[in-house]
Amino acid sequence: MRHPYLMTPGPSPLAPQIREALGRDIIHHRTEEFRNILAEINEGLKYVFRTNEPVLTFASSGTGAMQAAVSNFLSSKDKALVVVGGKFGERWREICETFSVEVVSLDIEWGSPPSLEKISDILKKDSQVRAIYTTLCETSTATVYNIKEIAQLTKDKEILLVVDAISGLGQDVLETQAWGVDIVVAGSQKGFMLPPGLAFISLNKKAEEFLKQSDLPDYYFNVREALKSYQKNDTPFTPAVSLIRGLAEAIKIIKEEGIENRWEYFKKLSSATREALKSLGLKLFSKSPSSSVTAVSVEGLDTQEIVKRMRTKYGISIAGGQAHLKGKIIRIAHMGYINEQDMVMCLFCLEKVLNELGYKLEKGISLKTFQEVFYS
Amino acid sequence: MRHPYLMTPGPSPLAPQIREALGRDIIHHRTEEFRNILAEINEGLKYVFRTNEPVLTFASSGTGAMQAAVSNFLSSKDKALVVVGGKFGERWREICETFSVEVVSLDIEWGSPPSLEKISDILKKDSQVRAIYTTLCETSTATVYNIKEIAQLTKDKEILLVVDAISGLGQDVLETQAWGVDIVVAGSQKGFMLPPGLAFISLNKKAEEFLKQSDLPDYYFNVREALKSYQKNDTPFTPAVSLIRGLAEAIKIIKEEGIENRWEYFKKLSSATREALKSLGLKLFSKSPSSSVTAVSVEGLDTQEIVKRMRTKYGISIAGGQAHLKGKIIRIAHMGYINEQDMVMCLFCLEKVLNELGYKLEKGISLKTFQEVFYS
Repeated sequence: MRHPYLMTPGPSPLAPQIREALGRDIIHHRTEEFRNILAEINEGLKYVFRTNEPVLTFASSGTGAMQAAVSNFLSSKDKALVVVGGKFGERWREICETFSVEVVSLDIEWGSPPSLEKISDILKKDSQVRAIYTTLCETSTATVYNIKEIAQLTKDKEILLVVDAISGLGQDVLETQAWGVDIVVAGSQKGFMLPPGLAFISLNKKAEEFLKQSDLPDYYFNVREALKSYQKNDTPFTPAVSLIRGLAEAIKIIKEEGIENRWEYFKKLSSATREALKSLGLKLFSKSPSSSVTAVSVEGLDTQEIVKRMRTKYGISIAGGQAHLKGKIIRIAHMGYINEQDMVMCLFCLEKVLNELGYKLEKGISLKTFQEVFYS
Repeated sequence: MRHPYLMTPGPSPLAPQIREALGRDIIHHRTEEFRNILAEINEGLKYVFRTNEPVLTFASSGTGAMQAAVSNFLSSKDKALVVVGGKFGERWREICETFSVEVVSLDIEWGSPPSLEKISDILKKDSQVRAIYTTLCETSTATVYNIKEIAQLTKDKEILLVVDAISGLGQDVLETQAWGVDIVVAGSQKGFMLPPGLAFISLNKKAEEFLKQSDLPDYYFNVREALKSYQKNDTPFTPAVSLIRGLAEAIKIIKEEGIENRWEYFKKLSSATREALKSLGLKLFSKSPSSSVTAVSVEGLDTQEIVKRMRTKYGISIAGGQAHLKGKIIRIAHMGYINEQDMVMCLFCLEKVLNELGYKLEKGISLKTFQEVFYS
């Protein structure tokens, strides 16, 4: 009688119409039929990314598009400011270092957004910094960064702002074009309700200027070639046909609901989740909580044990902490195809697990709080 | 009443049990359940690749693994001998050039395998050549290369033999370990009967030695990291979960039938196809025809028109020629999930199309020939 429930910050569960699309027989990718699908998803991605500029699709996981965002826009020995406040900031740093980009690391407290003053100071002191690499939702700490404000610092300068929105896109507000974010990277397995295997990268005119000057080597993630193919609703290499047909369904769902309505929805869902967890006496980890995922610490308990029990006894997958946060926090996602019914079911079992582990709580308090906040 | 039939040299149609697997709900990739699946496919890939050495899986199309086979094993200014006798040989050259590898190009006639004497000469004259990049089945010309013999030239030397088996694996005989092929690259959408989106790379001990010395930059396709994760049945980045579950089904099919039986089967299927096409007066394009795909030229007709009519009137997708062979040849695949019933249906419609275009033929001759050869 145990159903599996996926409430980890990626992958997110698949919508039924997406599962149906994934199971369809394959079609050839160099046909009018498939070019029409590419045309449809290319338009749809602009809608989701909130931009009129191109959004390219690669057959890879999100990290592939992160690599593309470095290897196509900078040159060896270029300087980049990297905001490191979690596992995915660290990934930016590693990618830059792999490509001999000189990293100016802004190491911030895990769970906090970066200080605008510090970013501004670095840019003033070091005129060599050509790009900022940062994150919309730092998944490892459930923290949303102040992208709109950071963009104010780069908008009218020859500095590229590159944002990893892999886990945040679709839940956390991101106005790519209006804010002036030059490059946004995303993946398929979070807000898009798809399996992993597609990565996306948007780029504006400023980014296209950087593209012309870059001399780093990359063949599979060559944005110049991908852009040429994109203009003809084509791809340089064989695309992940099934996932792209699933994406067309995902975009239909997002368009039908409206991206702004979805932002509102996840704002409410995450807010109700946070209040519910707080009512259990758990402590919010992030000082700037994301609408995509919530992290809390649990006084006196190893959170790995909570994660394990949730999965083995109740079929619910939530996430623990990564790196030095292992055993210290639990992370519950509210992204993609996860809704309030899933959340109340999750809280119901979390109370049970906490109780089993000897944690003192008032039974039903998180359900009551969730109900009150969500339907307020 | 028109069914779509896919008979192009990739993608190949999907087996029903694979389609079912692709449409399953998603599971999390950092779980015992998924590690067990990875363990299963890792063993299965060794069986298909005919090696006891590791075969790594990337979320990308085949070209991603081709890049990995350059960026992880050579260094800038290293010399590589690249066999160029078609579109995929050209791709090896482009990738090497992207990574500043010095290319010694062996340009051969399209449709012929490389001359062993010429390869041997180059290796003798130029002791700086560290690797040979070549192809099992050059899809663009339907030609199988003499890999076994080439391996004799590199086996006991400090020269890496890298083979793109993207379209050939599963049909054309390839004894990776017994022949001493150091690196084999493949993709999911041909012999594996899967959608595109997975790429594979096998590497032996000699390749691991090269791996230690390489200094080229690549983060997403980092074989060192992938190898470390592989040992723990894990992946460095989020894997393409649905495709990997489909792969587990594909491997079951291949194991059940037996890889050697499949080689025999496709040998017979391709042989019957070639004789059938020849009985129509069409001319085989390749001097060393592959078991994966057959190419023929058609005297006096633009083959693009044949391809178009096959698709629009009869729902059958076959391929035309690429680059300077555009309009000059048609290519019909016999790989993956394509069987003799598909082939006879394809020949039936091809005769009709040729007839419509004014080509003189004896009605039914190709069907009769196919029957005779296939059931001989």
